[in-house]
Amino acid sequence: MSANWGKNIELSIFGESHGEAIGIIIGNLPAGLKLDYELINKEMKRRAPGQNQLSTSRVETDGYDIMSGVLNGVTTGAPLCAMIKNTSQHSKDYEELKAKMRPGHSDYPAFVKFKGYNDVRGGGMFSGRLTAPIVFAGAIAKQILKDKGIEIGAHILSIHNVLDDHFGIEPEFYALRDQLYPVINKDIFKDMEECIVEAKKKGDSVGGKIECAITGVPAGIGAPFFDSLESHLATLLWSIPAVKSVSFGDLDDITLLNGSEANDAYYYDQETVKTKTNHNGGVLGGISNGMPIVFTVGIKPTASISIPQDTVDVRNKTNTTLKIGGRHDPCIVPRAVVVVEAMAALGILDMLK
Amino acid sequence: MSANWGKNIELSIFGESHGEAIGIIIGNLPAGLKLDYELINKEMKRRAPGQNQLSTSRVETDGYDIMSGVLNGVTTGAPLCAMIKNTSQHSKDYEELKAKMRPGHSDYPAFVKFKGYNDVRGGGMFSGRLTAPIVFAGAIAKQILKDKGIEIGAHILSIHNVLDDHFGIEPEFYALRDQLYPVINKDIFKDMEECIVEAKKKGDSVGGKIECAITGVPAGIGAPFFDSLESHLATLLWSIPAVKSVSFGDLDDITLLNGSEANDAYYYDQETVKTKTNHNGGVLGGISNGMPIVFTVGIKPTASISIPQDTVDVRNKTNTTLKIGGRHDPCIVPRAVVVVEAMAALGILDMLK
Amino acid sequence: MSANWGKNIELSIFGESHGEAIGIIIGNLPAGLKLDYELINKEMKRRAPGQNQLSTSRVETDGYDIMSGVLNGVTTGAPLCAMIKNTSQHSKDYEELKAKMRPGHSDYPAFVKFKGYNDVRGGGMFSGRLTAPIVFAGAIAKQILKDKGIEIGAHILSIHNVLDDHFGIEPEFYALRDQLYPVINKDIFKDMEECIVEAKKKGDSVGGKIECAITGVPAGIGAPFFDSLESHLATLLWSIPAVKSVSFGDLDDITLLNGSEANDAYYYDQETVKTKTNHNGGVLGGISNGMPIVFTVGIKPTASISIPQDTVDVRNKTNTTLKIGGRHDPCIVPRAVVVVEAMAALGILDMLK
Amino acid sequence: MSANWGKNIELSIFGESHGEAIGIIIGNLPAGLKLDYELINKEMKRRAPGQNQLSTSRVETDGYDIMSGVLNGVTTGAPLCAMIKNTSQHSKDYEELKAKMRPGHSDYPAFVKFKGYNDVRGGGMFSGRLTAPIVFAGAIAKQILKDKGIEIGAHILSIHNVLDDHFGIEPEFYALRDQLYPVINKDIFKDMEECIVEAKKKGDSVGGKIECAITGVPAGIGAPFFDSLESHLATLLWSIPAVKSVSFGDLDDITLLNGSEANDAYYYDQETVKTKTNHNGGVLGGISNGMPIVFTVGIKPTASISIPQDTVDVRNKTNTTLKIGGRHDPCIVPRAVVVVEAMAALGILDMLK
Repeated sequence: MSANWGKNIELSIFGESHGEAIGIIIGNLPAGLKLDYELINKEMKRRAPGQNQLSTSRVETDGYDIMSGVLNGVTTGAPLCAMIKNTSQHSKDYEELKAKMRPGHSDYPAFVKFKGYNDVRGGGMFSGRLTAPIVFAGAIAKQILKDKGIEIGAHILSIHNVLDDHFGIEPEFYALRDQLYPVINKDIFKDMEECIVEAKKKGDSVGGKIECAITGVPAGIGAPFFDSLESHLATLLWSIPAVKSVSFGDLDDITLLNGSEANDAYYYDQETVKTKTNHNGGVLGGISNGMPIVFTVGIKPTASISIPQDTVDVRNKTNTTLKIGGRHDPCIVPRAVVVVEAMAALGILDMLK
Repeated sequence: MSANWGKNIELSIFGESHGEAIGIIIGNLPAGLKLDYELINKEMKRRAPGQNQLSTSRVETDGYDIMSGVLNGVTTGAPLCAMIKNTSQHSKDYEELKAKMRPGHSDYPAFVKFKGYNDVRGGGMFSGRLTAPIVFAGAIAKQILKDKGIEIGAHILSIHNVLDDHFGIEPEFYALRDQLYPVINKDIFKDMEECIVEAKKKGDSVGGKIECAITGVPAGIGAPFFDSLESHLATLLWSIPAVKSVSFGDLDDITLLNGSEANDAYYYDQETVKTKTNHNGGVLGGISNGMPIVFTVGIKPTASISIPQDTVDVRNKTNTTLKIGGRHDPCIVPRAVVVVEAMAALGILDMLK
Repeated sequence: MSANWGKNIELSIFGESHGEAIGIIIGNLPAGLKLDYELINKEMKRRAPGQNQLSTSRVETDGYDIMSGVLNGVTTGAPLCAMIKNTSQHSKDYEELKAKMRPGHSDYPAFVKFKGYNDVRGGGMFSGRLTAPIVFAGAIAKQILKDKGIEIGAHILSIHNVLDDHFGIEPEFYALRDQLYPVINKDIFKDMEECIVEAKKKGDSVGGKIECAITGVPAGIGAPFFDSLESHLATLLWSIPAVKSVSFGDLDDITLLNGSEANDAYYYDQETVKTKTNHNGGVLGGISNGMPIVFTVGIKPTASISIPQDTVDVRNKTNTTLKIGGRHDPCIVPRAVVVVEAMAALGILDMLK
Repeated sequence: MSANWGKNIELSIFGESHGEAIGIIIGNLPAGLKLDYELINKEMKRRAPGQNQLSTSRVETDGYDIMSGVLNGVTTGAPLCAMIKNTSQHSKDYEELKAKMRPGHSDYPAFVKFKGYNDVRGGGMFSGRLTAPIVFAGAIAKQILKDKGIEIGAHILSIHNVLDDHFGIEPEFYALRDQLYPVINKDIFKDMEECIVEAKKKGDSVGGKIECAITGVPAGIGAPFFDSLESHLATLLWSIPAVKSVSFGDLDDITLLNGSEANDAYYYDQETVKTKTNHNGGVLGGISNGMPIVFTVGIKPTASISIPQDTVDVRNKTNTTLKIGGRHDPCIVPRAVVVVEAMAALGILDMLK
């Protein structure tokens, strides 16, 4: 597994679901930053499971310990290592999972890549739990960005076929922040909830989309050819488990427009150049144009379902059927909102420095 | 502009549309490869404009000179530098373009980033012409991959709202290879053509989607967390001008499925583990699972249109209207097919080494 | 501070001398490696201080905890995080050190870079203690290399002006391995010891050189122009605190030879191409030639001395004098031998993959 | 061969001695820089051979063409590609060189690495000629640095056993700049010249050392652990052919000092913190301390000599003797001075951005 990322801000992530701990090292942080623990804790809580019927029943407190890089609450400039102990794992029998490959999961490619030595308990290094340290790092990135006038917000754009509204031309995050699982059209959330509960009843799962906006990014960030703003963010977004699509712009599908519609017309708002629409999501030629960066991430339905599935047994080299027990998260989209925001924050911070 | 890319295979790209030349350096190529010039030339031709009424009338022969790395047609192991002289550029007046920012183009963010010093003639460093060296490099990558049993093919999945079929579970490239602009459902291409011609008549443009498949990639390629197969390819795909979305899988939208449908069931085909469907596009947990890698790239409608557009004059800091003259490519999707294939080839090659 | 390194094997290091813990993440390790804990422990002990009168009296047990990447003693392919708790630190008053910059230490440049926020206790992130996780990682690298027939050994080439012999044309490590502080000419070590004790008595310190050899590296490793074997190793060697010089070859100074002496003549030893001398240290044109890789690292005298020194007080912006209390390591060269070996192992492993 | 380097400023180099051309791409250059062609030309001339009896008789005009990145003499922000056509090569028979490995040259490791496909004519990709594009890039880096108050100078510290003085505590470059081959003690150069001519007469060669200083670098540049200033520069310095050692500091060997001598005492010079000596070469803990960066590079005697040498014939797998014809550069140290300066400039520029 590749642990390291970043040209300026450096990330290195470690951990397996049922190992000793998971965690992250953040290198090249500025010294002298007084950490906003309230923000960190709030963000960690947004990701944590077990908060209501929509998510897995595993309770993760996600209490973190900072092992380095902070003295008296202020960054020292040394790499900040944050660690989250694994406490809640059940030592149930994972023998079946070493043989029967769960469809839609990483089991089989991991079995091949790691020659059967990977820790399959709880998904091992592929566990969604590894997004907890990302959210921790993202909270710090958000704090640094906020001081530069850059803010990040995201909402559930869809659960299955239940659709929220898109961000408007000037995304507002205020209303999103009082919602555990933010949507723009608050009326729609109960339909989303229903859709999730429905899937859960059947032992099935649903996916959805998350729309994220970054406001306050000055024009001129990102560089063609190989360091476009989109490339930079996409690398991080595709590190999030279950992400299957990324698109930039404030529409469902810009390819259905004509050029005359897709081209965002410029105008001067006082001294500032703005566009009347933001179908290009604040990026042109790989460079920010000063408008909000807007993108959408598609997340597939949770692979863990309790409906029996056809699969293979790699130990016996036979075809077989698998029924996964336990209670699963029927939709990870709500909890993934803060993860997407974290990746956006880290990606932009890395480009700004 | 960022020129360099790659951990194993190294790319470095240069050039501006109306400068002396464009080109590419490819580092870490294996020595002893007898170049397949026929393949290179065929691929270069697939990208070249001016071949029919669908594309810009600028004739680019795209004749390349190899400046290093090849002796008697065989790679030496030194970086291969290929150069394409710029010959056909018109030295028309570009003063207006330095002041009036074309909507949907990189003009304004580039103006900010490069403080007005970027070469605006023909789009400068943002010109689609820079994809020619990519196609050159991609042809070499394809040749190397073919020797490893890996093949790459792509087709136009849609032009505006005209849709081609998706690849089947076992993508076949043979039929695509005799088509300049490949589609699976050959009947549909005349509708696509019509759609493009229609847009052209109005001085407008259309976009579309390209579906690409890579067959023969063994299971186990790609690594979580930060070097997922998707992240690796996405970086390159988002270096292609006008790309606005990337999604993995053989469907339009996997988020509309339930988990029980999205999970590709495994079975043994003799000794080989396969999946019955390929909705995950051959990647799970960031690692290839042995099935064809399938992804779709969305390309926005060409920003160059001849319909007058509202914009700003950054010299006078006023609002204004711009009418772009000349003949534009009303749809770059057909010519972008080979570019997407090239990026896929380069991305996979970089991961394989 | 920059935490991350590596193209193939990935390292990320964290910690400060008096923080909670120090540690390292090692990414992209092969799965299925049964860790040789005996080797790890032996290597850790070689680096640990407090073993005799030659080193600092701080006792560091350097007990490590493996937080991830290992299951039942076997690597899983996930990043391996090893952590060493900081236990022995004295919470003495470090206020003086925040104001008075110790000459020869990183205090002043760190004060500027980190704006006074860096943790000065025990040297903070600059502490030699951070070489403990490097030695841990190096032990694993050595184990992997040994399976490929590659071995690494080093000895104290000099302490101050007391000189050991150079490695011969075929370096032998066997005899070195039973020595805590290895030298080739065993008679010389008591002179070295005397030299160190002499310095210690005066409250002063001495430096020296370490010669390292790597045997079994096949010809063809390393690549011109920018990834020469020397560049690759030098990056790591210059991450070791107090290293001031690196030279390749089995001589003190190859620039004093004529070309006819410096050119190592080739001959066939059965089927194998060898050189009669190894003045180029097994590297030509940035690529290994199959002979042992031999290089020497120069380490300056320990900056911590108890003799009063002229310096500045950055709080009062005045000139002042500083007398550093406590017992210092009068020569870190002996303990640095295993650190140099570790870096050599990590550097070669990163190039081999 | 690895072509690419750089985190901020990006370099990519190509070419072989007797191929079509050599050149370099420089990415991420600032836009709006009016190139100082006089400086570039002067620097190129300093490196060019054939200027007097001390160097090879091959006349290289090293006229460069800029293919991109510059418009009307001003950088556009696009990658700058500079190309130097190869014109003067003799198409003499190189068959012998493909079989008989020249001692001290890269021939044998390159033969193994590139399986015999590398271009051996004139040294191919290993030719010292590839330093010409480096000098070109270095001249631009120097120009940018000069605007930031940073200057770079170097001199021949030794030829064989003939020694120049070291830089003083405040290196002065003015006097060096009127010398084609700069030395501080001008009386010594005729001894150096004599030493070179003597070697030449015998068909032999000599090496030497180059001392380089960088003034005006502010305190705080470079970062522990893995991006120390020394590591950053060393990577580039070890890309220069024939470099065998690098040491930091203004002494021949800091390991011969006691700590009380090696520690550079601080004092306030008005508001500025300075050191009374600069034995640490302006770097402590991997970070600049505001004093001049001073380092020395050791260059081995030219491998090309006309004295017969023992070697192997890899075609016949036999031992043999080789006599290299032609006129060789008996000492490349004088011409390497500007190359070392160029690498220093590029390394510092990459860290500053």
